[in-house]
Amino acid sequence: MSAGKPIRITLIGAGTIGLSFAALHLKQKAKAEVIIYDTRPDIESYVTSTLPGYLGDSDGRDSISALISSSRLQIVADLRDAVQNSDIVQEQGPENAPFKQKIWPEIERYAPSDCLLWSSTSGIPASVQSIRMANPSRLLVVHPYNPPHVMPLIEIVPSLVTDPAVVTRTENYWKGLGREPVAMRKEVTGFVANRLAFVLLREAIHLVKEGVVSVGDLDRVVESSMGPRWAVAGPFKSYHMGGGAGGLEGFMKNIGGTVQACWDDAGRENVGEGWEQEVFRQTKEAYGDVKSSDFKERDSVTKEILSATRKTDKGILQAPSSHKL
Amino acid sequence: MSAGKPIRITLIGAGTIGLSFAALHLKQKAKAEVIIYDTRPDIESYVTSTLPGYLGDSDGRDSISALISSSRLQIVADLRDAVQNSDIVQEQGPENAPFKQKIWPEIERYAPSDCLLWSSTSGIPASVQSIRMANPSRLLVVHPYNPPHVMPLIEIVPSLVTDPAVVTRTENYWKGLGREPVAMRKEVTGFVANRLAFVLLREAIHLVKEGVVSVGDLDRVVESSMGPRWAVAGPFKSYHMGGGAGGLEGFMKNIGGTVQACWDDAGRENVGEGWEQEVFRQTKEAYGDVKSSDFKERDSVTKEILSATRKTDKGILQAPSSHKL
Repeated sequence: MSAGKPIRITLIGAGTIGLSFAALHLKQKAKAEVIIYDTRPDIESYVTSTLPGYLGDSDGRDSISALISSSRLQIVADLRDAVQNSDIVQEQGPENAPFKQKIWPEIERYAPSDCLLWSSTSGIPASVQSIRMANPSRLLVVHPYNPPHVMPLIEIVPSLVTDPAVVTRTENYWKGLGREPVAMRKEVTGFVANRLAFVLLREAIHLVKEGVVSVGDLDRVVESSMGPRWAVAGPFKSYHMGGGAGGLEGFMKNIGGTVQACWDDAGRENVGEGWEQEVFRQTKEAYGDVKSSDFKERDSVTKEILSATRKTDKGILQAPSSHKL
Repeated sequence: MSAGKPIRITLIGAGTIGLSFAALHLKQKAKAEVIIYDTRPDIESYVTSTLPGYLGDSDGRDSISALISSSRLQIVADLRDAVQNSDIVQEQGPENAPFKQKIWPEIERYAPSDCLLWSSTSGIPASVQSIRMANPSRLLVVHPYNPPHVMPLIEIVPSLVTDPAVVTRTENYWKGLGREPVAMRKEVTGFVANRLAFVLLREAIHLVKEGVVSVGDLDRVVESSMGPRWAVAGPFKSYHMGGGAGGLEGFMKNIGGTVQACWDDAGRENVGEGWEQEVFRQTKEAYGDVKSSDFKERDSVTKEILSATRKTDKGILQAPSSHKL
């Protein structure tokens, strides 16, 4: 694409993730144009009423009409019209393989030949989504940590046939948005962030089921230890520092026996195996029904935390740079 | 103990954890007296040179001599003298059962009968430490997340015979210091925080070993997703919010299949099974040798993060309150 022209991003699917991404693209790129394609009949009123919540306090409903009248935000009902002039097509439609396998060949037919093709799926890899495409080398997964307009992580998961240049262009775009793109080297079930979080959740479920700790107390443990620690330094860096002069190797030498004992004793609960009732009950008891003010408060504190972490030399957020694709 | 009298805390063992605890007791309790018992021959010069680093910038070497001359800090070479007038004896000596099993009966003999007896062990439960004590009902584990002068979590792990009133007095003391004490209901291998962290570490090792992601990139994933998220809301609360109106139950209904698939595919690496060389190499490559400035920076950012989290209604840090024991 030519310099100076606004980047055109088409979002396929405007659920909560889609609108969160729309806000991210719109807020941080003065020159981005966002096109929303979604088949729900009330899409215009839905976007108009919901998007302001993601854009934040400074941009109310007024700015939605301003965005629409300046063409920076477009709602387009025809797929061909929606993608034919786009630099990026980002899909977050229904989370099932047949839907994605059907829509990508259509998008491929209508979109420009150098358009980047992204799926924000949480679990269906590009190699599965692309089986009916003529040229699957442009397709990859860009998996956010919800909500993407707040959380910096973007997991980039190429398939074996994704063009490395497409990976680089994708990374550059997200860096330009102040995000933290991390490119994986292989497709793997659940990608990386969820795999890590879910093994910890499994052990958390085990400890509650065994009556060692309550749901609320387990959360307090994490909030006052691993959470703040890992916001500053991930697990390898943390334990590398924990080993002093010996680094991670010294850490494992000192405490490897305890580590292995914990691994040997770890839980093996499965979904549907009888822990649910008690864990759901305790969670409801601890937190009640989720209110919209809970999200506001969570996101506002999260932003403060992310702003604090910028000060590390391995800061979470990179300074926004140019967004050459 | 009588009102108005300073609390006397004897620390058995003055390694890095011991001195970090000394700083915590001294900084936040104007009226605390800290007595250090340690058999190393250079203990006085070691404390004088090392403790200021834990007390922070505002308290330099000068204040160590001030603390000593006012008896708020005492270094005592005889165990009987060290514990005989104490309200709390906190042990962080060598991490082996025979040492602890030998010293507790001696402490028990000399300490006042209502003195709280705490061990900061990372793995030896009170039930094992107390086997030679006449009355093991006063002993429990107070396990910090390092370094304790920065991190709020104190895991309180009573044995089956620990007096519940001792647990309550212990919780109250730590709440009064602005810490986050969490009392476990059962002794369990590795306690709670390390079990959770170590299962995540195991999966992290697996993903690096399988070539999915590098050590440095894995840390970036955690630092830009779970870290900041769990600093605000622990895993149960996070997924409860992730399920929207359905809460945690709704979350599991939506995504339980993916959760189970990740559990089924999770790694089972063991200590010493051949992943070490590559993981240590990548860690060293990513972070080099650990410098003292790394700790300073980590702790300074951590403090900012903890200060941000105070603003949640389930804030990490409680307001300091009275410290009635």
